[in-house]
Amino acid sequence: MISRYSFGKPFETEALVVKIEATEGKLPFFRTDGEGNYYYDFDDKDIVYGLGEQIRGINKRGWTYTSWNLDNPHHHEDTHSLYGAHNFLLVDGKELFGVFFDFPGKITFDIGYTKRNEMHVYADRNDMNVYIITGDNKKDIVNQFRVAIGQSYLAPFWAFGYGQSKWGYITEDDVRRVAEEYAKLGTPLDSIYLDIDYMQDFKDFTVNPERFSDLKKLVESMKEQGIHLVPIIDAGVKIEDGYDVYEEGVANNYFCKNEEGKDFVGAVWPGKVHFPDFLQPEARSWFGEKYGELTKLGIDGFWNDMNEPAIFYSEESLSEAIDAVASLKGKNIGLSEYFSTMGTIQGLSSNPKYYDQFYHNVNGQMVRHSDIHNLFGMNMTRAANEALCKLEPEKRTLFFSRASFIGAHRYGGIWQGDNLSWWSHILQGMQQLPALNMAGFIYIGSDTGGFGADTTEDLMLRWIQFALFTPLFRNHSALGTREQELYQFDSCKAMTEMVKIRYALIPYLYSEYLKAVINNDMMFKPLSFEFDDEESKCVEDQLLIGNELMIAPIYKQNASGRYVYLPEDMMLIRMRKYDDYETEQMTKGHHYIKVALDELVFFVRKDKAIPFAKPAKSTSELDLNSLGRLGYEGAKYEMYMDDGINPDVSATLKRVEI
Amino acid sequence: MISRYSFGKPFETEALVVKIEATEGKLPFFRTDGEGNYYYDFDDKDIVYGLGEQIRGINKRGWTYTSWNLDNPHHHEDTHSLYGAHNFLLVDGKELFGVFFDFPGKITFDIGYTKRNEMHVYADRNDMNVYIITGDNKKDIVNQFRVAIGQSYLAPFWAFGYGQSKWGYITEDDVRRVAEEYAKLGTPLDSIYLDIDYMQDFKDFTVNPERFSDLKKLVESMKEQGIHLVPIIDAGVKIEDGYDVYEEGVANNYFCKNEEGKDFVGAVWPGKVHFPDFLQPEARSWFGEKYGELTKLGIDGFWNDMNEPAIFYSEESLSEAIDAVASLKGKNIGLSEYFSTMGTIQGLSSNPKYYDQFYHNVNGQMVRHSDIHNLFGMNMTRAANEALCKLEPEKRTLFFSRASFIGAHRYGGIWQGDNLSWWSHILQGMQQLPALNMAGFIYIGSDTGGFGADTTEDLMLRWIQFALFTPLFRNHSALGTREQELYQFDSCKAMTEMVKIRYALIPYLYSEYLKAVINNDMMFKPLSFEFDDEESKCVEDQLLIGNELMIAPIYKQNASGRYVYLPEDMMLIRMRKYDDYETEQMTKGHHYIKVALDELVFFVRKDKAIPFAKPAKSTSELDLNSLGRLGYEGAKYEMYMDDGINPDVSATLKRVEI
Repeated sequence: MISRYSFGKPFETEALVVKIEATEGKLPFFRTDGEGNYYYDFDDKDIVYGLGEQIRGINKRGWTYTSWNLDNPHHHEDTHSLYGAHNFLLVDGKELFGVFFDFPGKITFDIGYTKRNEMHVYADRNDMNVYIITGDNKKDIVNQFRVAIGQSYLAPFWAFGYGQSKWGYITEDDVRRVAEEYAKLGTPLDSIYLDIDYMQDFKDFTVNPERFSDLKKLVESMKEQGIHLVPIIDAGVKIEDGYDVYEEGVANNYFCKNEEGKDFVGAVWPGKVHFPDFLQPEARSWFGEKYGELTKLGIDGFWNDMNEPAIFYSEESLSEAIDAVASLKGKNIGLSEYFSTMGTIQGLSSNPKYYDQFYHNVNGQMVRHSDIHNLFGMNMTRAANEALCKLEPEKRTLFFSRASFIGAHRYGGIWQGDNLSWWSHILQGMQQLPALNMAGFIYIGSDTGGFGADTTEDLMLRWIQFALFTPLFRNHSALGTREQELYQFDSCKAMTEMVKIRYALIPYLYSEYLKAVINNDMMFKPLSFEFDDEESKCVEDQLLIGNELMIAPIYKQNASGRYVYLPEDMMLIRMRKYDDYETEQMTKGHHYIKVALDELVFFVRKDKAIPFAKPAKSTSELDLNSLGRLGYEGAKYEMYMDDGINPDVSATLKRVEI
Repeated sequence: MISRYSFGKPFETEALVVKIEATEGKLPFFRTDGEGNYYYDFDDKDIVYGLGEQIRGINKRGWTYTSWNLDNPHHHEDTHSLYGAHNFLLVDGKELFGVFFDFPGKITFDIGYTKRNEMHVYADRNDMNVYIITGDNKKDIVNQFRVAIGQSYLAPFWAFGYGQSKWGYITEDDVRRVAEEYAKLGTPLDSIYLDIDYMQDFKDFTVNPERFSDLKKLVESMKEQGIHLVPIIDAGVKIEDGYDVYEEGVANNYFCKNEEGKDFVGAVWPGKVHFPDFLQPEARSWFGEKYGELTKLGIDGFWNDMNEPAIFYSEESLSEAIDAVASLKGKNIGLSEYFSTMGTIQGLSSNPKYYDQFYHNVNGQMVRHSDIHNLFGMNMTRAANEALCKLEPEKRTLFFSRASFIGAHRYGGIWQGDNLSWWSHILQGMQQLPALNMAGFIYIGSDTGGFGADTTEDLMLRWIQFALFTPLFRNHSALGTREQELYQFDSCKAMTEMVKIRYALIPYLYSEYLKAVINNDMMFKPLSFEFDDEESKCVEDQLLIGNELMIAPIYKQNASGRYVYLPEDMMLIRMRKYDDYETEQMTKGHHYIKVALDELVFFVRKDKAIPFAKPAKSTSELDLNSLGRLGYEGAKYEMYMDDGINPDVSATLKRVEI
């Protein structure tokens, strides 16, 4: 059961797709003070799940998290905000309930940081809807919430293939080379991503004609090889006379305004930009239609970036910072002066004050950006998705975003942002998956191998062995970091075998993905969502995938094995190649398992089985009609299949027992 | 056996205390090209131990490490350099040998980063001594190396007490309050540390007379409570007319010179400073004697900081950076210009080019600092230690440093630098301990609770449960971070019980410390140094302490237990208070053990026992004559004891069987 409690004058975020009448009476579970402070007292064993894209474990107790969409490449343990704002929590312990703080501005969840046994939630102001969800169990509560927020975005089947990306594919030759090298190596590949390099001066919906002389032809030649090109789109529109997007936006008041009513200026990759006012339906339609510039070249996938929105600096703040530094000239500088000036420079990027300086036009009312900050990225995603549904009504377009709010899950997937090539980031990415599923995001994945910093060969192998289970399976890295396409490594063959195993698993993964979308279920679950024992509640580094598999990846340098907890008897699968593997019956309980660097180990749950395909060089060549099986003999599996293209999933959905 | 291979014209680092004649003939184990490249080919199962204070695990395979003493508060997974330069490695696998690259400049160890199965060592230039140590086993090799580098610094007994520190104890009242609050809580306490706040304008050997009106009186009143005050000393000497240290240094040419022969100017906490030329014996004596300004006030412990040396900026570089920023004024800045200018600002701190800009006077020869960079901190430590041995010849002075090179271990301990209040930093600190022992550093420890970033109550408790086993057990945190004295937390009583357990363990810990120092042994060992099985080789999160104990701390948020591997039968001790505990006989093999937040779990090795004292409010009140025991009945323990004061350990050493 979902109850809505309304405080002050909530902004309509459109997170929910159903209208729930506000309940009179006292908010249950929480102590409130009427001024926007919400308190909950923990028992020692209470667990808090949720918050989507955040740091620090499946159980969120012990830190402070702030929902504030932020371009934050430092996914460090002391971080408070990442790219998403997913204000749904599930508390399990002396009480069991879900709670969604439907608030589009800054809201903070102090979950046992200030006081270990107290949760304190507080926002900038107390204008919000708080939804309390009670139910039979955790899955039931999540399911009710998911029904209320609407069906998740449905990705095309080909988006389950392996993708290669790098910030730094400067020319079409770079792209062709990636395809060639992978073909030579025999690695399956379904997509190559274009980062900001393909654009002309980082202008959205443009293509640099010198470095990409004929994108349409490139798209076609790639598609002949089964490869989709997926370009990036950024939120900021370059200020440049003659640039149609800029000129139309200005002419139609489609950009966010500053206090004086002029178009607000920030700086991002293109230099000075305006930000489309994605909260205006007209601005959304207009911006969305621009994606047609690329779809007409054959493009059928996009990723939306920098849509927190990231702001490197504002004109005013940069000018102030330059003045502050310039004033030091020739002076005998004291240390405090030095550090405060350096702090000014370092504080330029995405400074919170910028977000107080511009406004959205919401039904004729000027609404300060910071009051609805976390809806910006969501509405960019929505703009793109709604337009693409019109531009390409016959097929699904791949679509994922960096910034998000609950509600954005209906319009696209997300990738988990600019992580680092750190061992700890394998685990961190994994721990977010169930929380993202709870918030409706099912087409998800983190940059395989790590985006920032230099990767290593063993990190790459281990990361692949985890990421091959996530819907978005993309190798992506930053400009200036070590090249990490699989063919850069001595063990590229072992890596390729892992990618082939991914393709063999696609029938299962896609089927479980469809179930999660259609049935408002979770694809990735903590063990405690299926098992009631005390041990399962503590497991932070294993996940259930769908109803049949459990993964326990290796995420430590030089580890030749790991501990695994089996909440029931399971079958261990030890796989070097899709057709070279052993199985072992394992009993419920704690185990230490050895896992060589070129081995994938995962588990099939008791009396379950999964479909298993023969790998192919791309998803389009996968033979779904002659599937093998992995797992317990005699076990039945209900497989969801569709054509992977039709936006109306029910039109081609089949449920096949195998 | 130790063999020396000499290349080019090595600089005499004084790392070794014995003279080993250079061996003619080819360097074994390594391929060399005569140009300073050393290669070693790994088998898959080879393990590399060593490198002292570095990131990334006990087994160093899989990353690139650069020995370059660096003020680096980011102990991140992609870091290459920290504060120490400890160029000793132990390779165990198809071959077993130790190797010490005795080189005082920048040297890089690519241990399977570029090529997974290759180690590549290379330095700025090929003027170095390479020592190869072979022996019966790992312990034997380490012991031979330790004998060659000389006996480790011996700390006073009181230095094994608990210490409280914070950057931000601004006044003597702040210090008194710490003592009072701990007394109120009943927490044992042996030391309070003074960070840079106590000085007048950050001038070494001065005391701010307004905020610390009578340091001598403060020292006395603290000592009455059993508390030692331990001030910090920084490497840079403030440029200020009338300041004796500055004026004497200038007058006697005791400071490092720039290319024109003028005293080099850098900027650190005091603003502009000169750096003492610690490579000159006369400068060392002179600077060392200055510690007497504080010892005559009753001070008997010091920590040397910023002695990499850290340089926030040089006059020239700051001026260039200011000009670069100022030139942007009024311009329409392109993104590349913006980022390159910002990079200039961010690159000011400890920029490598500074270290090319100043020189040392070594026996009348001007030696460029960067050529001997890693000897600077070591020789500051030496300056202090040699002077203190003269100033206070009757007693040991507590002494530890941030920067170090092998050789510095004879003059003081180290703390492991400016870590963060991150869960992962418990483990990282722990993994460095055996490698530091290999390099001769025995009096060691990391900032308990974490220095940078905000700690949490559970992190603090878990960190204490690990740190109470390290010789230096100091709670320290940075200005502006959450206050983390134990009395700040609801569970201060549980924390106090853990500190009391530390005091109960001091007789054992100090005895094992003495053994490690006197016998050139390791106090902290990886399991694989005592056990030959394959499992022991893989354990990265447990350590043997001395010959009797094994620790397996909890270092994960919200963990209610952990996996432990026992290489032999052991006795588990589960302790809430020093006199409230259970023991359990555990069998060899893998186990999952539960550990509540207020419990300390550790292990006594088979048929071993340790002494266990009744806690006291400071080390001076510990009753060593009526010790209890923990462990196996009938087991004998040889306890090393001395008066804890006499610098000549043999003068009062007793070996008692208990």
